[in-house]
Amino acid sequence: MRVYLDNNATTIVDPKVFAEMVPYFCQMYGNPNSLHEFGSESHPALRKAMDQLYAGINASDEDDIVITSCATESNNWVIKSIYNDYILNGDKDHIITSEVEHPAVGASCKFLESLGVKVTYLPVNTDGVINVEDLKNAITDTTALVSIMWANNETGMIFPIEEIGAICKERGVLFHTDAVQAVGKIPVDVKKANVDFLSFSAHKFHGPKGIGGLYIRNGQPLSPFFHGGEHMGGRRSGTLNVAGIVGMGRAMELAVEALDFEKNNVRRLRDKLEDALLQIPEMMVVGTKEQRVPNTILVSVKGIEGEAMLWDLNQSGIGASTGSACASEALESNPVMEAIGAEADLAHTALRLSLSRFTTEEEIDFAIDVIQKAVIRLRAISSTYAYAPSWHVSKL
Amino acid sequence: MRVYLDNNATTIVDPKVFAEMVPYFCQMYGNPNSLHEFGSESHPALRKAMDQLYAGINASDEDDIVITSCATESNNWVIKSIYNDYILNGDKDHIITSEVEHPAVGASCKFLESLGVKVTYLPVNTDGVINVEDLKNAITDTTALVSIMWANNETGMIFPIEEIGAICKERGVLFHTDAVQAVGKIPVDVKKANVDFLSFSAHKFHGPKGIGGLYIRNGQPLSPFFHGGEHMGGRRSGTLNVAGIVGMGRAMELAVEALDFEKNNVRRLRDKLEDALLQIPEMMVVGTKEQRVPNTILVSVKGIEGEAMLWDLNQSGIGASTGSACASEALESNPVMEAIGAEADLAHTALRLSLSRFTTEEEIDFAIDVIQKAVIRLRAISSTYAYAPSWHVSKL
Repeated sequence: MRVYLDNNATTIVDPKVFAEMVPYFCQMYGNPNSLHEFGSESHPALRKAMDQLYAGINASDEDDIVITSCATESNNWVIKSIYNDYILNGDKDHIITSEVEHPAVGASCKFLESLGVKVTYLPVNTDGVINVEDLKNAITDTTALVSIMWANNETGMIFPIEEIGAICKERGVLFHTDAVQAVGKIPVDVKKANVDFLSFSAHKFHGPKGIGGLYIRNGQPLSPFFHGGEHMGGRRSGTLNVAGIVGMGRAMELAVEALDFEKNNVRRLRDKLEDALLQIPEMMVVGTKEQRVPNTILVSVKGIEGEAMLWDLNQSGIGASTGSACASEALESNPVMEAIGAEADLAHTALRLSLSRFTTEEEIDFAIDVIQKAVIRLRAISSTYAYAPSWHVSKL
Repeated sequence: MRVYLDNNATTIVDPKVFAEMVPYFCQMYGNPNSLHEFGSESHPALRKAMDQLYAGINASDEDDIVITSCATESNNWVIKSIYNDYILNGDKDHIITSEVEHPAVGASCKFLESLGVKVTYLPVNTDGVINVEDLKNAITDTTALVSIMWANNETGMIFPIEEIGAICKERGVLFHTDAVQAVGKIPVDVKKANVDFLSFSAHKFHGPKGIGGLYIRNGQPLSPFFHGGEHMGGRRSGTLNVAGIVGMGRAMELAVEALDFEKNNVRRLRDKLEDALLQIPEMMVVGTKEQRVPNTILVSVKGIEGEAMLWDLNQSGIGASTGSACASEALESNPVMEAIGAEADLAHTALRLSLSRFTTEEEIDFAIDVIQKAVIRLRAISSTYAYAPSWHVSKL
């Protein structure tokens, strides 16, 4: 049996999504910006896809959803154009983010620091979430942007986005959220959350890779990241990826339809897996079940290097992660584990298991069995198990 | 009959390319950066695709080809990172480009001008090509970059890239070329051309939309455009678009295999169409056949607005363009026609016809018949035909 439990890294394209995309490769291949039927024949599908995206995050007609190649582009765009528009060409000098953002936000902020921008990285508590009081205290008159993720990619912890949105609105500060790990897992409502900018990526919700979006609240100026032709109303140049857009729209629609299924069925399987893992001695899961997106478990397996566990699981046909795939080749310790105060030894033992609506109970039962045996086997040969820190034991 | 003659805007995905992509949507969907078989099972296909790309432009193993979402991204990346690396954080202050670049280059340069960078826009002659003497004279000790396209998207005219590359090398100036309209139409050899950076987009050579690349010569530093994870050796973050990369690799391979077919068969059909058009009175084609990529004709049809002609052709099932699809919604005059010195009236009469290896002789015969009749019909109702400028007549 093969069991894919790395859905926070990327997801299978829903066959219904793929079916929708197929005609836009070899049949309706025109450039939608062209003035002929080869170009315009894809317009109805593009309009439908845009409607699906607007509906999916409750955007208004006067808002913009601009298609990008992925959330990494969307995140880079917001942060760098805010720099251009409000810091370089304005009187702001400060950005606030968290210590546990995706590297696309974190590294963009580091880049701005190299240009002289002041960046506050809000710390997180042992559950991996920021304290909104810290945010209130960090905002100054020269703060240009607050960028806080909707849900964390590694822990699955949901951030208090509505509270953050209300604070930003009250203080007159622009608010961006990287919602990559929220869309398709929990309801995402840009109105309720008072966000000005929101990033998402299709491949995290059973759409294709290479396509994403940036929501921009009504009338909010933001200089382009890709300069060029007048695509997307001049906001983002580059020939439209028609198949990708059509696929992303359908993927959004299906994901929103499946939210109840996520909340109930995916959550039930996740909890079953989690409860079984916690039966094993000296395992620690970050954050409460209720505060997490329904599909994610970040567990520390005392005494076992995350990579050793991955290797063992992979031998049994299970795909999992030690954290973000965006940093996984580096064999570094889990940065979110470090941010929540775990010692380095413990941060090296992180194992992320992330389900999807395609995960079956049979697969979860299989995974439970495999992981239980792997822990016993690997701890038996672990040179560090006897000396592993006991910090996480106290949490159990 | 439907005849697609807008291949410089975008191309049909070759069914052989699409077949290669299919497994990477719903079967091998893992993130290639993940440490498990769901991720690694796409590695052989990715390696093959990268080999196809390197071979396609004669890159060396020590060079980098970095995958981007399109040439617009590649062009923005080079120009903005050169600004960051050599102007903001260096002692250069000057960029040289041409008046007829794609908007992704032109608008990026305009953006840099807003940041205080000096930009020289080299003029073109009546054939639409720069004079290399002008380039030599424009280079100064503070020139950071020369960015000149390999072939023009509207006229199809091929620029003297090897000469430009030699000049840049001799003067110690970095050289970028937007080769979007050259790849798959004529041989593109980064070694012979001495380029440091080269942009390309898969959808211009029968690959999918939403994927492209940037060639970077061995060891050439260039700060990232997308900050984030360590994808592509840290040069470009964002989850790899596996299906897109696999498709682009195969598309490159097929395009290179078809270069002789382009040179002979596509060219023969293009010339047949061109010769027939020039039988109609008062038509002017920009540039000689030999100096153009084999698939492109930019023709001025005296007295007929380009958009009227497009509408008429579209009614008969023919897709063509007045110029770049990237600006076609604006109903502006053709900027390349303007740059070569055509009066505004004439620049509004541009019609671009661009073939591909999928264009058949039957389609060309049909197009000849339709265009001949359209010219007669539209000139008969044209209010400007009697007063159209005679400049182009003298060229015939």
